[in-house]
Amino acid sequence: MISKKMRAMINSSSAIRAMFEEGKRMTALLGEDKVFDFSLGNPNIAPPPKVAEAIAKEVATDDAVFLHGYMSNAGYDDVRERIAAKLNADFGTGYRKEGVIMTVGAAGGLNVVLKALLDEGDEVIVLTPYFGEYRCYVSNFGGVLKEVATDADLMPDPDAIERAIGERTRAVIINTPNNPTGAVYGEKELRALAAALTRASARIGAPVYLISDEPYRELVYGGAVQPYVASFYPDTLTCYSYSKSLSLAGERIGYIAISPSARDYDDLCSACSVATRILGFVNAPSLMQRVVADCLDVKPDVEFYDRNRKAFQQVLDDAGLQYIEPRGAFYLFIKAPDGDEAKFCDAAKALGILIVPSSSFGVNGYARAAYCVSHDKIVRSKQAFAALAAQYK
Amino acid sequence: MISKKMRAMINSSSAIRAMFEEGKRMTALLGEDKVFDFSLGNPNIAPPPKVAEAIAKEVATDDAVFLHGYMSNAGYDDVRERIAAKLNADFGTGYRKEGVIMTVGAAGGLNVVLKALLDEGDEVIVLTPYFGEYRCYVSNFGGVLKEVATDADLMPDPDAIERAIGERTRAVIINTPNNPTGAVYGEKELRALAAALTRASARIGAPVYLISDEPYRELVYGGAVQPYVASFYPDTLTCYSYSKSLSLAGERIGYIAISPSARDYDDLCSACSVATRILGFVNAPSLMQRVVADCLDVKPDVEFYDRNRKAFQQVLDDAGLQYIEPRGAFYLFIKAPDGDEAKFCDAAKALGILIVPSSSFGVNGYARAAYCVSHDKIVRSKQAFAALAAQYK
Repeated sequence: MISKKMRAMINSSSAIRAMFEEGKRMTALLGEDKVFDFSLGNPNIAPPPKVAEAIAKEVATDDAVFLHGYMSNAGYDDVRERIAAKLNADFGTGYRKEGVIMTVGAAGGLNVVLKALLDEGDEVIVLTPYFGEYRCYVSNFGGVLKEVATDADLMPDPDAIERAIGERTRAVIINTPNNPTGAVYGEKELRALAAALTRASARIGAPVYLISDEPYRELVYGGAVQPYVASFYPDTLTCYSYSKSLSLAGERIGYIAISPSARDYDDLCSACSVATRILGFVNAPSLMQRVVADCLDVKPDVEFYDRNRKAFQQVLDDAGLQYIEPRGAFYLFIKAPDGDEAKFCDAAKALGILIVPSSSFGVNGYARAAYCVSHDKIVRSKQAFAALAAQYK
Repeated sequence: MISKKMRAMINSSSAIRAMFEEGKRMTALLGEDKVFDFSLGNPNIAPPPKVAEAIAKEVATDDAVFLHGYMSNAGYDDVRERIAAKLNADFGTGYRKEGVIMTVGAAGGLNVVLKALLDEGDEVIVLTPYFGEYRCYVSNFGGVLKEVATDADLMPDPDAIERAIGERTRAVIINTPNNPTGAVYGEKELRALAAALTRASARIGAPVYLISDEPYRELVYGGAVQPYVASFYPDTLTCYSYSKSLSLAGERIGYIAISPSARDYDDLCSACSVATRILGFVNAPSLMQRVVADCLDVKPDVEFYDRNRKAFQQVLDDAGLQYIEPRGAFYLFIKAPDGDEAKFCDAAKALGILIVPSSSFGVNGYARAAYCVSHDKIVRSKQAFAALAAQYK
């Protein structure tokens, strides 16, 4: 007697999460060393030492009633203030406290933003390939997902996006550095995208908001640079998470930063705060709000991921498998040699390799491998990948 | 350009939360000792010492990758197992790990359960007066709220509930000990309710689930006993929070316990796990999951609240204001002398007293005061309440 909607959701439940459960099952059955689980973006690197120090400091020095109690739905005032100041110092932005809403991770933030923006039937544009959960998030609020393909270099196609925008289009979601491809949108691409959105907004007579999903903001490699997205387009809502940068994925802590230049700024601030309450988040976890504010100067260990990236590329090169060379995030998009990603992932699984078919991301012909795992696991997967590739020779 | 739905929500934004913000503003303006803020159920008692010990223990001894990383959407297996075992030991239930879903507080749990159960147009019954947020939670999933009045003793009226149940009714939400009245449903009332739901389920040919919202489970006074609700009705979904029992309101940690006797048990377990993911919670905060599991034997400080209750009743008795004598939770439902709760709350505010009009809870003629504040604040409010009452003499 569960809902019809939910029955459909269970049946098509996230392949990524199904894979994670499968990985746990296989590990229990076959042993840790026989399973190469690259399915989930769960950082296999401990948080920086400052996180444990901050937890100890907060627990020791703060008023426990204040530390573990309710605050405003949008978060502690001082935490929001410090995050706004840090963003302004780093990116030359003009964020104000009111525009920073603490969230239950970026997933929570995206749901809050979409709740704030969408009425039944409103459209949201995503760029293929994209994180499959966007589909659920948009559907939660009766929104209609419109997929627009990226160009041959996996960059946004401004003309295609502009054409896809209609009267009911309320937002475009982008994600750079990108999950699942590792693409990094540069200044040129972001300027062209902003120009297209500006023209389209003028045409439909209403702002098309840019929702920038940025959990991988700092994770770029080989000299790639991630410009700050909100700098290019006034109507930007930035959703950030500390899941990757501080390895706090399970703690569910992040924020929405609403550009002060965004149209209907005051309404957006109120709506995001109220949506946080109404959706049952109530507020972002209190201790972790204070902990991340204590860790604003901590830099993520990009070297850890870069070393994994290089090792993984070597494994795939040695096996003779093709992939998209990642410039950021921590995913490799591997080509299914015969274009059949389902068959490819099944064959991989039989060899103990867990990777996610690209159909989860709205495209065919690829599989996603997350290389946020232990370095050792990547190195040890060499033979299994060689055996997988051999089946296609 | 926020959504029309959200505009309406902002306009009618929770009076409770608005009051909380007002309290902060007034305190900043007038000083702590001039403001008597009884608006929010935010425990003004520090968590028991074991909470800080458990945080320190977890941070010191656990694998930090495990402690702060993703786990299954439903929570850590061992945490779910330990909570099921504790419930079974305390209440003679037969919960299994699969039926315990860790949630972002009870608010998160209620949203997950409603997402699992409701299709557009399905009905949910609430008993007036009720926690106003239920309205938002049901509306999040296109559900239709049906209000049924409690009887003269503020107990469920089984006949009225049975009559209100139709083909589209999927669930009844109850909350005992009750917010806002402090009522505690006893064995007799719960048996009668279960019988009514059983008859109605048979009539419509589908289970009417009982959603038991239990954040105040342990907070009963003066010899009152709260029987365990799920023991009386097989199709019960229990939503619990550690917000009050461990004073962790800001940490957002609780669980759903699905009775193993519930019809479509397996589907309910899957649906709640998937809903946790889809709604953007992803999982309950990881460190706090482990902390509450370490604190299962800690008893809440009922004496703190009971002392406050007595002092508050004395303040009201001295002022000559009438109220419903609470048997549980930490709220007093005060009668507006002339029946006009809006005027009563405005007059109170002018004297520095913040209380919430009962229109927020679906009834007229009362105001809710939360006595989870410092004992001192209650004692110091004596004169202000006397002045308030004097205006009605």
